[in-house]
Amino acid sequence: MELQPSPLAVPFPAIPPVAGVTLRVARARYKAWDRCDLTYAELAPGTTVAGVFTRNVCCSSEVELGREQARLGSARALVVNAGNSNAFTGYRGREAVEQIMAQVAAHLGCTPSEVFVSSTGVIGVPLPLDKARAGIAAALEAPACSWEEAAATIGTTDTFAKGALATAVVAGRTVTLAGIIKGSGMIAPDMATMLGYVFTDAAVEPAFLQACLAAANVRTFSCITVDSDTSTSDTVLAFATGQAGNAPLAGFDDAGADAFAAALHDVCRQLAHLVVRDGEGAQKFVEIRVTGAESDESARRVGLAVGNSPLVKTAIAGEDANWGRVVMAVGKAGEPADRDKLSIGFGGVWTARNGMPLADYDEAPVAEHLKGREIQIAVDLGLGEGSATVWTCDLTHGYIAINADYRS
Amino acid sequence: MELQPSPLAVPFPAIPPVAGVTLRVARARYKAWDRCDLTYAELAPGTTVAGVFTRNVCCSSEVELGREQARLGSARALVVNAGNSNAFTGYRGREAVEQIMAQVAAHLGCTPSEVFVSSTGVIGVPLPLDKARAGIAAALEAPACSWEEAAATIGTTDTFAKGALATAVVAGRTVTLAGIIKGSGMIAPDMATMLGYVFTDAAVEPAFLQACLAAANVRTFSCITVDSDTSTSDTVLAFATGQAGNAPLAGFDDAGADAFAAALHDVCRQLAHLVVRDGEGAQKFVEIRVTGAESDESARRVGLAVGNSPLVKTAIAGEDANWGRVVMAVGKAGEPADRDKLSIGFGGVWTARNGMPLADYDEAPVAEHLKGREIQIAVDLGLGEGSATVWTCDLTHGYIAINADYRS
Repeated sequence: MELQPSPLAVPFPAIPPVAGVTLRVARARYKAWDRCDLTYAELAPGTTVAGVFTRNVCCSSEVELGREQARLGSARALVVNAGNSNAFTGYRGREAVEQIMAQVAAHLGCTPSEVFVSSTGVIGVPLPLDKARAGIAAALEAPACSWEEAAATIGTTDTFAKGALATAVVAGRTVTLAGIIKGSGMIAPDMATMLGYVFTDAAVEPAFLQACLAAANVRTFSCITVDSDTSTSDTVLAFATGQAGNAPLAGFDDAGADAFAAALHDVCRQLAHLVVRDGEGAQKFVEIRVTGAESDESARRVGLAVGNSPLVKTAIAGEDANWGRVVMAVGKAGEPADRDKLSIGFGGVWTARNGMPLADYDEAPVAEHLKGREIQIAVDLGLGEGSATVWTCDLTHGYIAINADYRS
Repeated sequence: MELQPSPLAVPFPAIPPVAGVTLRVARARYKAWDRCDLTYAELAPGTTVAGVFTRNVCCSSEVELGREQARLGSARALVVNAGNSNAFTGYRGREAVEQIMAQVAAHLGCTPSEVFVSSTGVIGVPLPLDKARAGIAAALEAPACSWEEAAATIGTTDTFAKGALATAVVAGRTVTLAGIIKGSGMIAPDMATMLGYVFTDAAVEPAFLQACLAAANVRTFSCITVDSDTSTSDTVLAFATGQAGNAPLAGFDDAGADAFAAALHDVCRQLAHLVVRDGEGAQKFVEIRVTGAESDESARRVGLAVGNSPLVKTAIAGEDANWGRVVMAVGKAGEPADRDKLSIGFGGVWTARNGMPLADYDEAPVAEHLKGREIQIAVDLGLGEGSATVWTCDLTHGYIAINADYRS
């Protein structure tokens, strides 16, 4: 099945090198394809790391190990395999990951726990040890490559390469944050996975890096949904090489810490949006802004209930200002809501207020808004101060075509 | 949009009259159509009632009132409006329901609280008082009609009329239970709703009827899903006219109580299955059997996570034994599960056991099974004794066509 580029694709940004990060790609040939499918990032000694991982209890060995490694806080390399997620493969899957860690650690003279491994693609097939070994050997000898090449190589059925950039001034020094991500394309019987990586030359203590990443995650990656299905491999890692020479950031009281956290949040938000823009079958990028909830977390859950509703998503695909389906989705979210205080709007125009449809709202700008690529839905619960923004895409024939019509 | 009958449709069963129940239908013309859209069921004095209702907090006035009325336990009539759900219509929606209750109560000489009203169809449009009044007047003078006519009249975009029958012997007397139901067809911007009604000539105390209905509901209506979207109007009511002459059933110790409860469960299960068989775009009826869970409720939640997964449902549509997607869905359910104890099967053949794919499982019978209309998925968690069965349908282009391509 030939996938067309998403109509919501955006060009890859110009991302400069990040000091302390060297990228290389190679052909491990995990599938019968002629493309690079193994990405290797070498990280300078002293690089710190933080990670957030899928909560799926059937997670891959990569996720299990990565979670433990991230707690240790030190990284020297990242390996990403594309074409095989190595999930649900028992002890053989774990052996493959441990082999890769050992091979790279021997090359770098570091400990295996400093080598992070991710895999994405078909599940239930143990990662072939021989292909992984040869692929790593090739990558270690490959020339350095660009961010765009690395972003393309971690993709599977992604329809465009995805990257993001931000800078922050930390105590007088400008630090760079570069991110790449893959998702949410898929070929049956593969499983959609999201793998995201942020690299910065800032010096950041691991615990603070973890705190910043976790905070950013709650408002970015945890606020996107394509189809409500949570992958077994979802991983976001942040690496800080410390090459910018700033005094290491250890807490929010440090000079520049707020700026760094904001820049990290910015990169994470950009990356999260790019995944939605490549959502399977997506024709429209949908932003759901929930206000007036009892808490921010409650607002997020209401937003996800709206963003996961097949009826809302098909209504958007049909360019239909179907606020009734939004009401339904709010009501089923399991969060505090009062039907008679609820307001729903599209593109800045309220179509229902305080539990009643507005018979005389101006339909023309709403209809025009819904014909566009970028859709805004507003939900005001009228209860409190909690708010959240969630991003999703519409549900189209393309989603069915990708996931049902094609068979591997 | 002309809907074709579901390929999973079954003929309407031969349902005899139930003593104490008289059915009539009329044209209220809630929409611009030439069909009966108002159903009236007159119930003999002494009829008891029980109900289960949507948990959607944005529920309709019909649901709010019905919940209160069911607690009182007495019923003399049921009115079902098709074509307008009257949901999210504020005080005007409530006025319409109260008008119908008063009009029928005056006719029967009963209290308004004994008149149950349901509505299904477009939301956000208050039920027109004049049409409702004229429709009720016409129904009260209409000739008695069959179960099939009543079942067809409560439908909206259902593609076939749905009914079920069971009998039970209660202390030497045979009692009849007849059920009709509508769902899950829809035309945008309508909202899928499920309305189900069971009528029996058995004599049953309201509290025991409620207990039996609630127990049946947990294992039947609460175990089906078409698209994970919970309607604002879902309602199931059970009416017991007492005309069979048995000593009223008041608890499980009464003679025949177990038989009655089993028959009620049977009718509810039949009705629930019929809704799935008319699921939007459904091409396959899917049964998900979960065993080895820590509790029955945990098993039900795991089953619903599988049944609601767009990736599992599209895999079934593609006739793909994609157990990896089932693993993913189990893992995201938020219930206790251990990847390395998990087993997945299709049509009686295990394809993965104890966390490992079975490389040598017999693919031929699995492929053959998946080509059929009735699909069985088995999930064994290997943890405990909890079990549940959940029913759903596949996710096809038909679902998108019904919900996105058509606009009202």
